[in-house]
Amino acid sequence: MSIRRSEIREAQRRTDELFRKAGIVLTEEERAGIEVAGFGLGELETEGLELVTYVNTDRYCAKELALFPYQTCPEHLHPDVGGETGKMETFRCRWGLVYLYVEGEPVAEAKARIPERSAAHYTVRHEIVLTPGEQYTIPPNTKHWFQGGPEGAIVSEFSSTSRDEFDVFTDPAVVRIPPIVED
Amino acid sequence: MSIRRSEIREAQRRTDELFRKAGIVLTEEERAGIEVAGFGLGELETEGLELVTYVNTDRYCAKELALFPYQTCPEHLHPDVGGETGKMETFRCRWGLVYLYVEGEPVAEAKARIPERSAAHYTVRHEIVLTPGEQYTIPPNTKHWFQGGPEGAIVSEFSSTSRDEFDVFTDPAVVRIPPIVED
Repeated sequence: MSIRRSEIREAQRRTDELFRKAGIVLTEEERAGIEVAGFGLGELETEGLELVTYVNTDRYCAKELALFPYQTCPEHLHPDVGGETGKMETFRCRWGLVYLYVEGEPVAEAKARIPERSAAHYTVRHEIVLTPGEQYTIPPNTKHWFQGGPEGAIVSEFSSTSRDEFDVFTDPAVVRIPPIVED
Repeated sequence: MSIRRSEIREAQRRTDELFRKAGIVLTEEERAGIEVAGFGLGELETEGLELVTYVNTDRYCAKELALFPYQTCPEHLHPDVGGETGKMETFRCRWGLVYLYVEGEPVAEAKARIPERSAAHYTVRHEIVLTPGEQYTIPPNTKHWFQGGPEGAIVSEFSSTSRDEFDVFTDPAVVRIPPIVED
């Protein structure tokens, strides 16, 4: 499924607003290049993620992630790539609230609003709630998904090298970089 | 040279204040554990650095650094350790102003105030000025030093694994972890 150019622009504008609220300063170039990941699932509001990659070398990576209210990054894992252990990442909540789910003892009732359309593809339910200043490290090869709270969230991601193109999503409908339709 | 417990406490209090000004949220535990690096040079105000290590795994590291006005982190480099290439690090200015000096074409007149007592140990003078949102990546095995601007600075450091105990300082008087005198 594709994403419209106007939708990307509007998401960039709202992300910029969230970063400002959170006191995160970006350069003009970074603001213009905010990445909007729609995952090709049709509803960016429901399933999507906005981000800026500060640095991604062959040794480490740092990104700033933004989630709109109740926006969800779909379940996925980072597999080993070319003999190197999969990506390990630390999520540090800077602003707002994050509901994070990983493999492990499932919670009886999740605080997050599980996207109806693709509920079957959210299989891990071990719940971690992050408020500003709190962080959690996700081991390689571990399924996880996360959602912004009622006001959304800003999350600093510190990690080993990022190779997003190898991420394995539970939902086979996910397209990491869907085609853009000019409108 | 030693550092007094009261000096550490006062530096922690001021660092906490700087982090608040910059909108950086820390947990209570992180606030209580703010690291004060005096480098054993006698004048923490002049040569020193305050920091919180968020995460340091065998793959990556992330820290938040604080510099008081004109406070300087002395010149050093990160050597190869046990066959592994030296630490590579990205400094991202979040608040304030940073004067960063690395190997390369020297500037005629540095914007930083070079610490008088140990001026001879500040040998690299290629100047980079970072304002909020700007960043610079320092390659392994490269001499560098940096100073906070007129109001100080908050810097996010993203890097490969941190092994501070192997850092090589130009000034032989530097003691990475000076003894603490209770007072």
